Amino acid sequence: MVTHVTEEIPRSVWYGWGDPERARPLRAGALQYLLSTLRLDSVEATCPPVDFSSITVAPSGIDAQALAALRAVTGDRHVSTRDSERILHAGGKSTPDLMRMRAGEVPEAPDAVVFPGSAEEVRAILAVCVERGLAVVAFGGGTSVVGGVDPVRANFSGVITLDMRRLDRLLHIDPVSRTATLEAGMRGPAIEAALQAHGFTLGHFPQSHQEATLGGYVATRSAGQASTGYGRMENLVKAVHLETPSGPFDVGSSAPGTAAGPKLLDAIVGSEGTLGVITSATLMISPLPKHKSYGAWSFPSFEAGADALRRLRHEGVRGDMPHVCRLSDTDETAATFKLGGWKAGALARYLVLRGQRTQALALFVWEGGEREAKARKRRSARIMRRAGGVALGPLPATAWEHGRFNGPYMRDELLTRGVYVETLETAATWTELAATYARVRGAILGALEAHGKAGYVQAHISHVYPDGASLYYTCLDD
Amino acid sequence: MVTHVTEEIPRSVWYGWGDPERARPLRAGALQYLLSTLRLDSVEATCPPVDFSSITVAPSGIDAQALAALRAVTGDRHVSTRDSERILHAGGKSTPDLMRMRAGEVPEAPDAVVFPGSAEEVRAILAVCVERGLAVVAFGGGTSVVGGVDPVRANFSGVITLDMRRLDRLLHIDPVSRTATLEAGMRGPAIEAALQAHGFTLGHFPQSHQEATLGGYVATRSAGQASTGYGRMENLVKAVHLETPSGPFDVGSSAPGTAAGPKLLDAIVGSEGTLGVITSATLMISPLPKHKSYGAWSFPSFEAGADALRRLRHEGVRGDMPHVCRLSDTDETAATFKLGGWKAGALARYLVLRGQRTQALALFVWEGGEREAKARKRRSARIMRRAGGVALGPLPATAWEHGRFNGPYMRDELLTRGVYVETLETAATWTELAATYARVRGAILGALEAHGKAGYVQAHISHVYPDGASLYYTCLDD
Repeated sequence: MVTHVTEEIPRSVWYGWGDPERARPLRAGALQYLLSTLRLDSVEATCPPVDFSSITVAPSGIDAQALAALRAVTGDRHVSTRDSERILHAGGKSTPDLMRMRAGEVPEAPDAVVFPGSAEEVRAILAVCVERGLAVVAFGGGTSVVGGVDPVRANFSGVITLDMRRLDRLLHIDPVSRTATLEAGMRGPAIEAALQAHGFTLGHFPQSHQEATLGGYVATRSAGQASTGYGRMENLVKAVHLETPSGPFDVGSSAPGTAAGPKLLDAIVGSEGTLGVITSATLMISPLPKHKSYGAWSFPSFEAGADALRRLRHEGVRGDMPHVCRLSDTDETAATFKLGGWKAGALARYLVLRGQRTQALALFVWEGGEREAKARKRRSARIMRRAGGVALGPLPATAWEHGRFNGPYMRDELLTRGVYVETLETAATWTELAATYARVRGAILGALEAHGKAGYVQAHISHVYPDGASLYYTCLDD
Repeated sequence: MVTHVTEEIPRSVWYGWGDPERARPLRAGALQYLLSTLRLDSVEATCPPVDFSSITVAPSGIDAQALAALRAVTGDRHVSTRDSERILHAGGKSTPDLMRMRAGEVPEAPDAVVFPGSAEEVRAILAVCVERGLAVVAFGGGTSVVGGVDPVRANFSGVITLDMRRLDRLLHIDPVSRTATLEAGMRGPAIEAALQAHGFTLGHFPQSHQEATLGGYVATRSAGQASTGYGRMENLVKAVHLETPSGPFDVGSSAPGTAAGPKLLDAIVGSEGTLGVITSATLMISPLPKHKSYGAWSFPSFEAGADALRRLRHEGVRGDMPHVCRLSDTDETAATFKLGGWKAGALARYLVLRGQRTQALALFVWEGGEREAKARKRRSARIMRRAGGVALGPLPATAWEHGRFNGPYMRDELLTRGVYVETLETAATWTELAATYARVRGAILGALEAHGKAGYVQAHISHVYPDGASLYYTCLDD
């Protein structure tokens, strides 16, 4: 059965996110909200991307000998020097990346894009590149927002991008020990489809799930929407196979634990491709949950909601933490209620009637056996109520889950309408959380104001740690 | 209130473990069991340690200038070149270490023992040692069993041991975020006393708890008896302050999480002092449990018991895993019942009546709120029963807890009686566990047999991971 986490979509469109066919245009109410929030005169679609065919790049600088050597490794059809392929691999998906691309500006593109079919081919390609002084960029889903896939030539004679999409196999699964070895080029839906066929899930769902790859998850030290329950990528990875300019390198092991150090695995996780090309990884997997319980509570302020999450983590029964645990600040909550249709509007009015004039919305998903998940939700509800939360039923959480991968599509439409949108993330201990939240928010608004922008910032917590929580900011300006 | 985890004992006796006043001699029944198991003619106390005053070491090779430079850092009384102090720092507590020491053989001793009082003093001492080509060994509780505190001179002009006992302060505690920063020289009981005064525990209880230090925990990537519940040292450490020959180095941070890599903290955890001297660390702490529930079950074989632990981990309700989770193989269980007095003997007879002619004993401690811990035990009991376990009540687990730090004392008596005893540890995935268990056991017995020894091996699991378990072997021979 294909579900929203196993459904494969086409490779991302060149100017923006995913498959534009799946984008849902902003409704009139949302546009009105934008106009008033950002104090804009217009949100007409005045800034569409240029025509793809109009984009030009500097010609590939790769010489015939290097090209022949690469083609000897992978076969002719897996090495491309076509401009269209080079442009598609010219950057990631940060907002600055997209703005350049939409304007048809491609300052640097790889000299060739190579699609290796195995770790051995990656090794051979690296040997060619070492010999010829070519830089190499590993490219998974291409969703990096920190320049991780930029084709930086620097002092090298050229730059080659390795598109890992052909390394797409589940190599091994151990259902007894609950581990699996997967190739690095598998995208989120392919990973889930392969594991779910055996009754398992990786449980890793970043917003980029539909495009991002396993290798990218490891290389970027990724966190997902359900990482409070399943753990972040660094908690899931047991071992990595790396191909480096000096040869293959296996780090970590299948052993469940070891007292022997120093351990280098954690130096690879988050290395952003700088230490080698990740070709496969062995990870912890979990049984597919039999049941999901959804819940939502509203708090009078972000700070009150954050304190409720801390209490849930610290005072709740061991194991009761939901797999998904999110808290929006009052601005993000207002936007959610405003853009969420008439049911969301009704919830907002209900909260005002209950005396909550400002609202910070917390969403939870408990996964597991049905009886267990429901019991965890029930016990957690007591803590939420004691902490001042007003229960809102399952709807806000199911609605969130339904649209969980849609955020980046909205960015494309906003950019077309001339509205800049960017995100950034940090984390703080419980002790520092409220102050960090306010300081970062203030810094963003201050910077926008200094540039004469009518900025808007919203934030949420999407990962709860024992000692603190993440803070994820979205900012918009004209 | 002083408890068995906060009670400080004197620094370990030179020839063996801990405070010999606390050792309880083996009873007649135990001696008889030894005689028959190892097929010995005698277990008389024929091999006592030599007289301490008879031990000689090569004179300290440190020159007057170096000594003066060290004394200028710490003050005269914190630098010792006395033979007695040098002998006390000549090695760790592995069985070979003890056998050499008991025989009065001290092949290498540090040229001086320095007791720094702060990270700054450690830094200044390292500068002196760099300048003068002196090797430096960090020494915490001195309980290393892998040569970690051996005063290896190698190609250096001399070797200095840094005894960290004066770095003994709780530097900071954050009860809201549940973290604490502690100096490296604190021994287990001091750590617990400092944290328990604030209502918290580190939850880290290796068998060496009474002697080992925080710095040693980090440097050796330590696991403890309750690590199934609290996590191993690498799960608890957030940040480490290191003094290195090139200067101070802070690794990790107070942030609860970060996507920025590569992370180097895991290269320090387990580095055994090779990368610098750990002077303090910031760790996760937990509230002192309000209640403990104890349970024990017996299984017809080690393999059946291991499968029950796997089911408990995989099929049990999230969070139900006990904090302490141990399973002895049939040999260790037989020894436990044999050496445990009449109540243990009665349990063994009861199991035979219940049809269990061979027994593998599983011990559990659930910690937390009373209602919660009891509920977790109750649910777990169902899984144990379904997996073929026979319930034995709390007694075996409370008895184990009462004697949890006593094992190493027994080694001293066995060595005095001419019986060699050694331990080693590994881990395997659930899939490989039974085969690994049997292979390591066979290899030990085979090696003993090849040397004409009537060997005896017992083993237990003391840490359960999601994907496997630890295996801890104790072997004895004549």
